This record gives sequence, C-alpha cells and structure tokens, in this order.
Amino acid sequence: MTDVRVILVAPKFEGNIGAIARSMANFDVSELYLVHPCEIGDDAYRRAKHGADILDNAKIVDSIDEALEGCFLVVGTSGVTTKGDRNYVRIPVSAHEFAEKVTDYKEKIAILFGREDIGLLQDELARCDILIHIPSSDTYPILNLSHAATIVLYELFGNNIEAPEPADLEEKERMFAFFDKLLDNIDYPEQRKEYTSAMFRRMMGRAVPSKYEYNTIMGVFGDASRLITGKLSYPSQKDQ
Amino acid sequence: MTDVRVILVAPKFEGNIGAIARSMANFDVSELYLVHPCEIGDDAYRRAKHGADILDNAKIVDSIDEALEGCFLVVGTSGVTTKGDRNYVRIPVSAHEFAEKVTDYKEKIAILFGREDIGLLQDELARCDILIHIPSSDTYPILNLSHAATIVLYELFGNNIEAPEPADLEEKERMFAFFDKLLDNIDYPEQRKEYTSAMFRRMMGRAVPSKYEYNTIMGVFGDASRLITGKLSYPSQKDQ
Repeated sequence: MTDVRVILVAPKFEGNIGAIARSMANFDVSELYLVHPCEIGDDAYRRAKHGADILDNAKIVDSIDEALEGCFLVVGTSGVTTKGDRNYVRIPVSAHEFAEKVTDYKEKIAILFGREDIGLLQDELARCDILIHIPSSDTYPILNLSHAATIVLYELFGNNIEAPEPADLEEKERMFAFFDKLLDNIDYPEQRKEYTSAMFRRMMGRAVPSKYEYNTIMGVFGDASRLITGKLSYPSQKDQ
Repeated sequence: MTDVRVILVAPKFEGNIGAIARSMANFDVSELYLVHPCEIGDDAYRRAKHGADILDNAKIVDSIDEALEGCFLVVGTSGVTTKGDRNYVRIPVSAHEFAEKVTDYKEKIAILFGREDIGLLQDELARCDILIHIPSSDTYPILNLSHAATIVLYELFGNNIEAPEPADLEEKERMFAFFDKLLDNIDYPEQRKEYTSAMFRRMMGRAVPSKYEYNTIMGVFGDASRLITGKLSYPSQKDQ
C-alpha cells in the first residue's frame, strides 16, 4: 500500500473531518494533518467511529508548508477542471489513473483536500505536483468533502478483491461433458446440441465460477442425467 | 450511463439518506427507493444540497418486492465477504469489476444498500443476482453507508476523464529534436547524450503531455538554445 498523508486545508465542518478519519481507517491510511481546521468535537468523533485514534493523532498545523514536510509528491484535488489546457495547475488526471500510477511508489505522498466551499486556492494548487479529479455530473460536480476523500482513498487502496479459486481446465471439461451428457439424456434436438453446448461454455466462461460452483453444477447435471436414465432414485442419497 | 435505481433498506439515519441523494446527483442517478426508512427531515435536506429533488421524489415502499418492480438485475452490497466459497450469496465481485461488466447494460439495475449496522439480511441477499463488495481494511472494513454508496455510484459513472488533446508524433519529434539540440548547445558530454536523450523521451512518454505542454517545453528549449548560441537576446521578444 502506498504511504499516504491526508491533509485537510481549512475544513469548516467537524463532521467531515470525522467522516474522513473513518474512511482513512477503512482504507488503512493513518496520517492526518489539518491546516487551520474548525474545532473538533463530539460530532467529529461520532462520525469517525473506529477512526477515532486517527483524530486523536491528527497534527494541527499553521501552514501547508508544515503539513507537507517529509512528503515527496504533493497531490491536489479539485472538483473543477479546466476548460482549455493552458491553465496548467488545473489539468488533472483521474483519481483512478493516479492510483494506478503510484502503486509501488515508495516515497510519502501528500494528498491535499480543500475547503468545503471553494476547495484549494490557486496558490495552493500551484504547490501541487499533480492534480487529481473525480469524474462526476456536469450539472452537479461538487462532491461532499468526505465523499471525495473516500473515493481517492478507495482508489489508492486498490479495488480488486481475491476471487475464490477458479476451477481448473480439467474440472471445467468434466462439467461440460456432464452438460453434453444431459443434453443427450433429455433427447435434445441433435441439430441444436453443438450450439447450445458452445453457448453454455461461453456463459460459464464469462461467469468464471469457483471450484465449488463447478462441482455443484456438475452434481446437478449428474443427478439429472442419472434420474433420467433410471440409474438413481430421487431424492439423491449421495449429496447432502 | 447505466440505468440505476438506488434502494436503501431500512436506513436508520436521515443524514445518510441525504448524503446519498447528493452523491446520486453527483453521478447522474435520480431514482431513489426507501424501504421502511427512518423519518426524513432537515438533516437529510441539509446533507442532500443540490440532491434535494431526489429526496423529494424518493419512493417510500413497504417491501423489497415493491422496490424491485421493473428492475432486471438485482445487486446487493455487502461489507462482509465470505471466507470459503460455499456460501454462494456471499461471494462478491468488486464494485469496480461490476461497473465494468454493466457498461452498455440497457435494463434497469437495482442496487440494494442495507442497514447501517447489520447491512442486508440473509434472505435479502438471497434475492440478489449479484453481490458487490468494496475492498477495504481487514481491521476495519465497515464503511459509512453514504461512503459505500458513493463509491458504487462513482464506479458506475465511469472513472475516466477526457484528457486534453495529446501532442501528435510530429510535434513530439520536433520537441525531442529541440532537446537534443539543447544538449549540443550546452556541450553535454558526448558519451551521455544518447542515454539522456532516451531518458527524456521515456519520461515524456509516461507524462503524455498535451499539445500545449509540448509547445511550451519546446519554446523553453528553443529559447535556451538560441540564448546560448547568441541568436536571441534575453528577454525573449518572440514569446509572450
């Protein structure tokens, strides 16, 4: 996981600070710096839930310079993108693209989030090495501060999950054989067999089933075939 | 954009309902169904901001069946993933993977979000065709409800932004020529020229600069070269 420091610049609502602390805990980020924040009270802690220790350890500083100490890459966030491409500080990359670029990045990255109403000021944006943006509605592009931070943290966390072990080739072929056998046993029209068999195979391919799912489906086909051919009496005693 | 209906099942805090309405507006989704929600008052509207009309038009219903009417695909969300792969309703795909799969999907998709504390119940999950999950911290995987909804809506919106027009090949080559010329003009060590030139090319390749950026850099190199060789006096009169 990338080494990230979240910096909130002059946040106005403690609820947002708390909500961001919670999201940080959700995505394994713990370093929070607050530049000229509003007061932090009960509401912040209520929203932080298990992110309370992140609030406790948050560093309150007087300037962005202080907040950036020890960071190698400074990342700004902006709800507004430039129309042309002449205003260099306003040319953003998407949060998704950014997250992909900094996987395996070793140095500490500072991510600056601006005020709820006007975001980061021009001279604050000019301090940023890169500007990231969250694609959103043309009619209402301004996200809640904690929502924006959550999306950025989510992207940095990485958005893949471990899938259950997929079935191997042999297991798959065995299931397809069971399916074909079932077609035989139900006297499926000969001229449509090949097509239906291929369709089933493609459908399963798209689904990428787990071993367990393959085995379950295979059991169903097997039992159906055996019932049809009279080699098994219903209900099945074999499966539990 | 995919045709999405957001269904909140028994939400307990009106603030979350409002915050989700805002996110829906941020990501161009407008259909909100609420199954046995808490009361919706000022706090919901305060959080909804420009999503207020989504709150106004939210349909309050008595059952999930009612909420699902007219939907083709039923999508559940769960903060908890299964350990094994035997509990089929708990095998999720990531929100990101799901969003990629349903691009160009024409039928209406219902996305169910459960209660803040216990999520969707087992029989509610069993109604879902697919279960999506947001990868998160092992130590604190439970996201705030509106944060979870925001991430799913963000993924469905699509997370690419239009980049400014990149420079074409000819423009790039011209810039690299200017860079090489600059190396000549600064009497750069002959044995390192090739390496440095290639390094600069690779660096620019990773940056995918816009036309404007290329032209700007080219101007800088050009002026530097001309100043070094005495063909231009500083400050440049040519560029504004």
